[in-house]
Amino acid sequence: MEPIANPAITDPAGFRAGAVHAGIKRDGRSLDLCIVASDRPAAAAGVFTRNKVRAAPVVLSEERLRSGRCQALVVNAGNANCCTGERGMADARRMTELTAERLGLLVGDVAVGSTGVIGVHLPMEKVERGIGQIEPRPGAGHDAARAIMTTDTRPKEAGVRLGIGAHTVTIAGIAKGSGMIHPNMATMLAFVATDAALSPSFLRRALGEAVERSFNQMTVDGDTSTNDTLIALANGAAGNPPLELGAADGRAFVEALTAVAADLARQIARDGEGATKFIEMVVEGALSEADARLAAKAVVGSSLVKTAVYGADPNWGRVLCALGYSGADVDEHKVDLRIGDVWLMRAGQIQSFDRAAGVAALRGPDVRIWANLNLGNARATAWGCDLTEGYVEINGKYTT
Amino acid sequence: MEPIANPAITDPAGFRAGAVHAGIKRDGRSLDLCIVASDRPAAAAGVFTRNKVRAAPVVLSEERLRSGRCQALVVNAGNANCCTGERGMADARRMTELTAERLGLLVGDVAVGSTGVIGVHLPMEKVERGIGQIEPRPGAGHDAARAIMTTDTRPKEAGVRLGIGAHTVTIAGIAKGSGMIHPNMATMLAFVATDAALSPSFLRRALGEAVERSFNQMTVDGDTSTNDTLIALANGAAGNPPLELGAADGRAFVEALTAVAADLARQIARDGEGATKFIEMVVEGALSEADARLAAKAVVGSSLVKTAVYGADPNWGRVLCALGYSGADVDEHKVDLRIGDVWLMRAGQIQSFDRAAGVAALRGPDVRIWANLNLGNARATAWGCDLTEGYVEINGKYTT
Repeated sequence: MEPIANPAITDPAGFRAGAVHAGIKRDGRSLDLCIVASDRPAAAAGVFTRNKVRAAPVVLSEERLRSGRCQALVVNAGNANCCTGERGMADARRMTELTAERLGLLVGDVAVGSTGVIGVHLPMEKVERGIGQIEPRPGAGHDAARAIMTTDTRPKEAGVRLGIGAHTVTIAGIAKGSGMIHPNMATMLAFVATDAALSPSFLRRALGEAVERSFNQMTVDGDTSTNDTLIALANGAAGNPPLELGAADGRAFVEALTAVAADLARQIARDGEGATKFIEMVVEGALSEADARLAAKAVVGSSLVKTAVYGADPNWGRVLCALGYSGADVDEHKVDLRIGDVWLMRAGQIQSFDRAAGVAALRGPDVRIWANLNLGNARATAWGCDLTEGYVEINGKYTT
Repeated sequence: MEPIANPAITDPAGFRAGAVHAGIKRDGRSLDLCIVASDRPAAAAGVFTRNKVRAAPVVLSEERLRSGRCQALVVNAGNANCCTGERGMADARRMTELTAERLGLLVGDVAVGSTGVIGVHLPMEKVERGIGQIEPRPGAGHDAARAIMTTDTRPKEAGVRLGIGAHTVTIAGIAKGSGMIHPNMATMLAFVATDAALSPSFLRRALGEAVERSFNQMTVDGDTSTNDTLIALANGAAGNPPLELGAADGRAFVEALTAVAADLARQIARDGEGATKFIEMVVEGALSEADARLAAKAVVGSSLVKTAVYGADPNWGRVLCALGYSGADVDEHKVDLRIGDVWLMRAGQIQSFDRAAGVAALRGPDVRIWANLNLGNARATAWGCDLTEGYVEINGKYTT
């Protein structure tokens, strides 16, 4: 597997994308509506929010993906089409119909995503006009990455290539953050395209596994969105013999898919609303991988850890506190703890440390915290960002 | 039941308190060490943090309260005596020994609480000198309320009187916030004294019930502390016939105890770190009281709701989103939602509302949000505060 420089969701063979400014965002210029399409029907799988309040596009796309097949995605930013009742469902359906007409596809082969403000109806005349203007092209993946942004400061794109026998398979994805980010079985919006040949059931399982080790290990603010959507399309254009779960090639594909998803997840964390620093928490020595995940995620989710990182304050007791309430088995008398290269605790014993070195380990844009629970052999990583005045400012004024 | 004006923990008959500046806090003047004592052994019960990392005073006090009896509490602020290993346990034990010696009590009848920075050993020579200087007096309850403060901007005290037959029973308590506040079966530090006569088992059950409807429904920042401690002492000095759970008097006492605990919980929420506004969330029409509690607490715990309240932004979709991920049964097609007097949703239908009125409902220091899930008959309330730049500032610089 090798990473792609400047990746785009149209890098896999047979994918096109296009985007326009339809006027859903109020700034009068940003791209806010896009289509990503395959030139042939693709195996498809999706993972959606576990929030009980589910936006109309989530409900509709989940329904559509039950067939295991999809050919195009239409996505808007600036309006979540959530808490919009029957009319919201009709609007979501209409978006897929317009896209199917535009591209000459079956409406059942189109899925839809929306992100933005909750509780406001979509401006459908703008959406309709916008879809009519989109011209999907093979090289336009970067536009789609831009069109799904809300408070993101930069687009998120990731991609890898891997050899499957004599064939080269490409996997590429896009995602958007950057608030209401605390995915539970999915992230806010992320789309992955690949030209690998595989079955829908393979893709479903591969995606589920990738999500657990990527989007679900990342948090910005602890709020699980109503619109979390991750959809993967695999159109088989690479021509490889279909992948199988048990086989080495299948395993390699799952690893590559996880790498793309984790790359996108890290980009979302790094661009969290108001964030100035990226935080990576590694937990080792947990009793189970589930415990390791819980523990790592609690640390990057703690407001007190996040503010301490922001202030470059090596107040490491907050890390221990978060490990303790994470739900994972933790015995503080056994814990090893390090921030960067600075040891703070060994086997539960407080280590005297050079305060200046502790501050330095928290000063840079990338902060790495590591704990060994010394209870078992499981390991997990989680990603987050610091909590700053900028987050408060952005979110005190979102709809105004 | 009637509230006491300017209540103090020494209002119930037979209780004394005293406090000194021992030098554990670094400001060189604030009270930081106190004793609250009964003139006779009291029935006692405690509720402690569910964090798996538990401070030494939590471990020791829980052990001591197993007897159902306690006569004095010694509490310090400025140092949590947490993650301090064997030496921390010895220090906690020593605090109770010094207090027992000072007051002529059995060491087993003394409990201890600590709050402040984690991972630093207590300065025991200062603690020892301080305990030697404390002179508990009947009227000095306000000093104890001040001595347990950390980042609190004001002391938290509450009290009520109620008639039990011909006798008047007094219940009074103190508490401290104001960060790392997301109690799970207890709050950071709170102590309640009463002169009611009752058994330890009655007190244990009454306290458990009161906590569920008070401290456990309040959050400041989602971080469950390592030191959460709530201890209640009942010394029987009121002379009433012992209370019983089934009887009307017993029920009245539980209600009064809950009122004192809820008053303290609201004071903690109102004085949350950096808070400018108090938020009360009422959920009605839930399928169960547990669901109602989950739903209400998720809303006041949401960073996005908290920042929207701070910015007086009626972005009510965030409330719906939090109800949806709370874990409670929620059907957004049935929800009624109001902020102050402004209706935002009725039976799941978006209500057009006057934006200026929506902003006005969020402008004052007290914000009230109300939702009816229209699924059942259960109801609960939760309390919290807004999330501001002040929280970030306070917590970016705590140990420095």
